[in-house]
Amino acid sequence: MAIAKKISESMNKSSFIRKMFEEGARLKALHGAENVFDFSLGNPNLVPPPEFKAALFEAVEESGAGTHSYMPNVGYPFVRKALAEYLSIEHGIGLGENDLIMTCGAAGALNVVFKTLLDPGDEVLTPAPYFVEYNFYVDNHGGALKTVTTHSDFTLDLPAMDEAITEKTKAVLINSPNNPTGQIYSKESLDALGALLREKGKAFGRTIYLISDEPYRKIVYDGQQVPSIFSSYTETIIATSYSKDISVPGERIGFLAVHPGATFKSELLSGMALCNRILGFVNAPALMQRVMGKIQGVTVDITQYEKNRKLFCEGLARAGYDFTVPPGAFYLFPRSPIEDDVAFVRELQEELILVVPGSGFGGPGHFRIAYCCDEASIVKALPGFQKVMAKYK
Amino acid sequence: MAIAKKISESMNKSSFIRKMFEEGARLKALHGAENVFDFSLGNPNLVPPPEFKAALFEAVEESGAGTHSYMPNVGYPFVRKALAEYLSIEHGIGLGENDLIMTCGAAGALNVVFKTLLDPGDEVLTPAPYFVEYNFYVDNHGGALKTVTTHSDFTLDLPAMDEAITEKTKAVLINSPNNPTGQIYSKESLDALGALLREKGKAFGRTIYLISDEPYRKIVYDGQQVPSIFSSYTETIIATSYSKDISVPGERIGFLAVHPGATFKSELLSGMALCNRILGFVNAPALMQRVMGKIQGVTVDITQYEKNRKLFCEGLARAGYDFTVPPGAFYLFPRSPIEDDVAFVRELQEELILVVPGSGFGGPGHFRIAYCCDEASIVKALPGFQKVMAKYK
Repeated sequence: MAIAKKISESMNKSSFIRKMFEEGARLKALHGAENVFDFSLGNPNLVPPPEFKAALFEAVEESGAGTHSYMPNVGYPFVRKALAEYLSIEHGIGLGENDLIMTCGAAGALNVVFKTLLDPGDEVLTPAPYFVEYNFYVDNHGGALKTVTTHSDFTLDLPAMDEAITEKTKAVLINSPNNPTGQIYSKESLDALGALLREKGKAFGRTIYLISDEPYRKIVYDGQQVPSIFSSYTETIIATSYSKDISVPGERIGFLAVHPGATFKSELLSGMALCNRILGFVNAPALMQRVMGKIQGVTVDITQYEKNRKLFCEGLARAGYDFTVPPGAFYLFPRSPIEDDVAFVRELQEELILVVPGSGFGGPGHFRIAYCCDEASIVKALPGFQKVMAKYK
Repeated sequence: MAIAKKISESMNKSSFIRKMFEEGARLKALHGAENVFDFSLGNPNLVPPPEFKAALFEAVEESGAGTHSYMPNVGYPFVRKALAEYLSIEHGIGLGENDLIMTCGAAGALNVVFKTLLDPGDEVLTPAPYFVEYNFYVDNHGGALKTVTTHSDFTLDLPAMDEAITEKTKAVLINSPNNPTGQIYSKESLDALGALLREKGKAFGRTIYLISDEPYRKIVYDGQQVPSIFSSYTETIIATSYSKDISVPGERIGFLAVHPGATFKSELLSGMALCNRILGFVNAPALMQRVMGKIQGVTVDITQYEKNRKLFCEGLARAGYDFTVPPGAFYLFPRSPIEDDVAFVRELQEELILVVPGSGFGGPGHFRIAYCCDEASIVKALPGFQKVMAKYK
């Protein structure tokens, strides 16, 4: 073999998604990118808030001896201090700088967590539909990801979770607001999940961790709140990023926060510091750490996402699509009118509309629309959505 | 177990190095940091070149819609194009933008390479002394690192390499200029290594890759040149960073370059793009990619390193230390006058001098001095080096 068997297989397995993207690229080349309505990518289109650029200028003005050097692998103490102060208020719990590790985004943070936690054979449970990269993040470190069904509106199904937890379960991974559904888990359901994990942990004689991937925490509508996971369970780790809050996903900046009361807090944090180093992240990018230290709590203006969501929800409802109105994130996850979501997505492609089949998120029979895009393309695409649906009504 | 067994063990194993660092911290707290001579860390102390700050300002001025967004996982095409043009001249071989992947530093690049290449049981060979993090980078992805002895001046020992290569060998990893020895491998020895790998690859019916970790390529003295590995062997991957060229190790920016004639170039590059994504790097930090695209070929002024090297070499020679004058990097790797290098390093600590035992680099009986430091601390530390050595003369 030229390269590892597993990597070679992964490249083949993901080929149906790649083919969809290739078809999208072909359509753009053929019809002009401006005439193809691309709702396939979760790449936030909003400009970062003005505070970001101001802080970036300030950080660059301060650039000099030592400002681009190695710092502790867990990140600058002063940045973690600013973050701890902000999070303590946001989560209503006293966090210290040493409960936090700055990371290369949420994807980096999750790899660090799984490398730290997983022994061979350990399983991680996640409610489906889910962000399929989780499979890689868990598999990279010798674990296996198992999915758990959710209710038809994508809220947590506690009895299903109860049944899924076994003596192999090392952690439950949740993502709220969710990609691809936009669903937010309620405080009641999180409290029930916490109680379940405490009970199962006791029964199996092991700590079952709850890992919360929450990069969409600030992207919520209609006055919704994302409950703090820290108030529902003690053995909790937040792995998140500034990618969507500040609209800077290319900069790879995020953090890990461990519940201050976690039983094995010291082992967890030392292990994660080691893993952040040895996985090759070494530390989160220095300049972006400094910038984020200056703008804790700043969020992009989500008015445009809110408008896009309204436009799509009204248009899709008129066209007869069946979907749950998403309270957060910038995704819609409508039901496909035919069982074969890949076939349905191909039909939308004929109208020059690009979306992703639900099968790519462990949610077959659905498709994902990313509405972090310009408003005009939604207006222009809606007739196409209507035309394809009309065939099945 | 609260965390993975392997991570728990790794934390215990590295405890002797940690204890040395803790003792260093204790000494600094006791005597004041300015009175402790710390040569233990390879954290470049030079300010980045002025071109870096100018390019950084320019990149920040350009900051706006899309400049902090996701880009292709392999990096911005225009940045890779600028890099390809520079590398084509530097290496005297025609490289295209698609032969390159921007990475989160060399540590990120190496993890991506090993994830892409290694099947369970595969071995990677590296000449010792070596950067011990390599053990983690290979083990993270299911391989095993094996060391190969070098000559007493730390140059490549080809017969030893010949003997070490087996049917399990997937790759040879070299680091020239070397950390911890500062040695540079000659064109002749690299040609011989290339010939050996071709021959062994044929004998075992597999491609044996040569991976060149070369972050110290620009840190060389006395008009020395670091030969291009690309001219010695075709199945070669360069994994490197701007950390030392530009003195920005905290920013985590580097790249991978595959030999344009590599047999499985396309599989390698697709596999590495996938692994860069799934390991959680996703892409190299956006802003730093843009900055590096503007300053290809710019290097920090190494006059101060050169002065430090001279000062140390003269002082240590006078004191009776036995060492090879290092042609590159910013390390000296003298022989310890007693076999137990850890004990010797403890004796230096009593003189408030911090260095790292050679055992920490697979080079017992030696110790590493990092001279990327201020000149004054060298002048003040030399009497201490002399005093400790005097006991053994």
